[in-house]
Amino acid sequence: MGETVVRFGIIGAAEIARKVSRAIALAPNAIVLAIGSRSREKALKFASDNGLNPEVKIYGSYEAVLDDPEIDAVYMPLPTSLHLLWAVLAAEKKKHVLLEKPVALNVAEFDKILEACEANGVQFMDGTMWMHNPRTAMMKEFLSDANKFGQLKSVYSDFTYAFDSNFLANDIRIKPEFDGLGALGDFGWYCIRSILFAANFELPKKVIALPNPIRNECGVILSCGCSLLWDDGKIATFYCSFLSNMTTNLTAIGTNGTLHLTDFVIPYDEKEARFSTHSKSRFAHLMTGWGPIPDEHIVPTDLPQEAHMVRKFSHLVNKIKQNGTKPKKKWPIISRKTQLVLDAVKASLDQGFEVEVGE
Amino acid sequence: MGETVVRFGIIGAAEIARKVSRAIALAPNAIVLAIGSRSREKALKFASDNGLNPEVKIYGSYEAVLDDPEIDAVYMPLPTSLHLLWAVLAAEKKKHVLLEKPVALNVAEFDKILEACEANGVQFMDGTMWMHNPRTAMMKEFLSDANKFGQLKSVYSDFTYAFDSNFLANDIRIKPEFDGLGALGDFGWYCIRSILFAANFELPKKVIALPNPIRNECGVILSCGCSLLWDDGKIATFYCSFLSNMTTNLTAIGTNGTLHLTDFVIPYDEKEARFSTHSKSRFAHLMTGWGPIPDEHIVPTDLPQEAHMVRKFSHLVNKIKQNGTKPKKKWPIISRKTQLVLDAVKASLDQGFEVEVGE
Repeated sequence: MGETVVRFGIIGAAEIARKVSRAIALAPNAIVLAIGSRSREKALKFASDNGLNPEVKIYGSYEAVLDDPEIDAVYMPLPTSLHLLWAVLAAEKKKHVLLEKPVALNVAEFDKILEACEANGVQFMDGTMWMHNPRTAMMKEFLSDANKFGQLKSVYSDFTYAFDSNFLANDIRIKPEFDGLGALGDFGWYCIRSILFAANFELPKKVIALPNPIRNECGVILSCGCSLLWDDGKIATFYCSFLSNMTTNLTAIGTNGTLHLTDFVIPYDEKEARFSTHSKSRFAHLMTGWGPIPDEHIVPTDLPQEAHMVRKFSHLVNKIKQNGTKPKKKWPIISRKTQLVLDAVKASLDQGFEVEVGE
Repeated sequence: MGETVVRFGIIGAAEIARKVSRAIALAPNAIVLAIGSRSREKALKFASDNGLNPEVKIYGSYEAVLDDPEIDAVYMPLPTSLHLLWAVLAAEKKKHVLLEKPVALNVAEFDKILEACEANGVQFMDGTMWMHNPRTAMMKEFLSDANKFGQLKSVYSDFTYAFDSNFLANDIRIKPEFDGLGALGDFGWYCIRSILFAANFELPKKVIALPNPIRNECGVILSCGCSLLWDDGKIATFYCSFLSNMTTNLTAIGTNGTLHLTDFVIPYDEKEARFSTHSKSRFAHLMTGWGPIPDEHIVPTDLPQEAHMVRKFSHLVNKIKQNGTKPKKKWPIISRKTQLVLDAVKASLDQGFEVEVGE
């Protein structure tokens, strides 16, 4: 593609960094240049466990990665409570920021990250991989088709996973000091994003959480549900949980069509992704069947969706580096809207009532 | 099967009666003996339009059907507001009652129907066809499996259909004097039933409707959503609408497994029905896919689900006729629970708040 290669530093050696370091290696316009963890040993172990290039620099601190002038961009798989500090610092060091979700504990924090990125002219993108799957662009095309899909009326999304007792006792994703948003931040983020995606990123007016979310003894949400309401009557509902068998459904229903898939977060297979659509469906004669039945679409994926994400992000970084243009606003705007809704859901869960979505 | 044949009278010539008269003809233990409509012409037209046996008796009133001593059972595809009157009368005339859903305008009405059926020793069953599909028994087996499915945590169900402007202007299903429950009674009934089915017919404690259901100018519901809550933390959500493309999803998520199908009300094909399950699902290595992917089950259906319904009902009628036993209580109990939840949903929609489910 004639692009220069974007040199990534990875800050933190979380499990998800294994997947993204592979994605950086797979993306044609990116390489891993350095890995930094809280100790050199951890960083070394990560590099060897994941077969990183032996030339990758090993740093025993996050700062060292940010101080390396050869690094263009950082990927940050850090606990949510550390995002504000490290993402702001990275931006101030002129590093482009690929940040794991949820992007912050709340939108006020996230706005500080965005200010730092804007002030320093660096690109921001969150790590919501499925947004970059070629399937997503095809789904978007269907949802935008006034004839085949029409006007959106309702969305349902779920993301659940049955974590084991060890996770539920020890994992940082259920510790209030690290990831205080729990299942809402980790899984609900995807559901909210999918709903916004289906709604062409029009923010809902209000949210109403289901009462009595399940929390652990520290108050961190393990399971919750919420409905989102728009002024035009559109509604959406999502459910996320750390306590149920893995399920990832997305159903968007319009006046003329329906979009449906059961693996929206991570496709069953990284080489191809499927979704189904049906338009102007009718029952068959005497309502004894359907005519026609839904169409199944198969989208070949040359690269895994996370590599598509890295490639897209790196492409935006290259445009800034090569042309001196401003960072693309689309991605931080989408992140911020997702966080805005997440904040409202959290408030509704805490207060037990309907809450207006902020601006 | 060595059973005698149950002789049906059909009261009313609604569209759905065409499907059920075919089902009665297909069921090995049932025949249509008479069709009664508000005029003899209508009944005649129905008989000839639907190829009924020329020996089928044609009646110009509902009463005449009920007064025919050769008739064992009546199928009643009448508007909901007429159920109380005609179902009670049928029971008093010792006719077994196969009644379309919703069974009544509210549970108080339905209790009068049940009292009449009990006092006269006749079988009651509602016309929820999918309950009798062989697929449903297989789904039940999966949901009851403590290892494969575990404990139910959440259910999502939808039933939507984009009716045309002629329907929305003229059909009795949106006229308050005929079917005052609108989309809730017609489609929500199926969603509520599917949720109760997944919950092994344990009644929820409370329901919370989504605010601002869409109503027509007479106040009849065209589109609404609601969540159902159990004391143990189980939750369910459904959405029903006359204004969106046809969609009929059911997803039940347990601690160990997930059940999913997209045609729960009427299978795509009447010769076979599908559903998918997955148990103890995990992400593949590095979360780059699923391992294993969900199982797709294909259930051959020797008879359409509505013929299974007629066969089951007729079998129960025969047991009463031949052995003098009491009517089976399972089916009226299930109908009543569905109506109880429907009543609570209606109250929550009308009042805009959470409502306790009655008893």
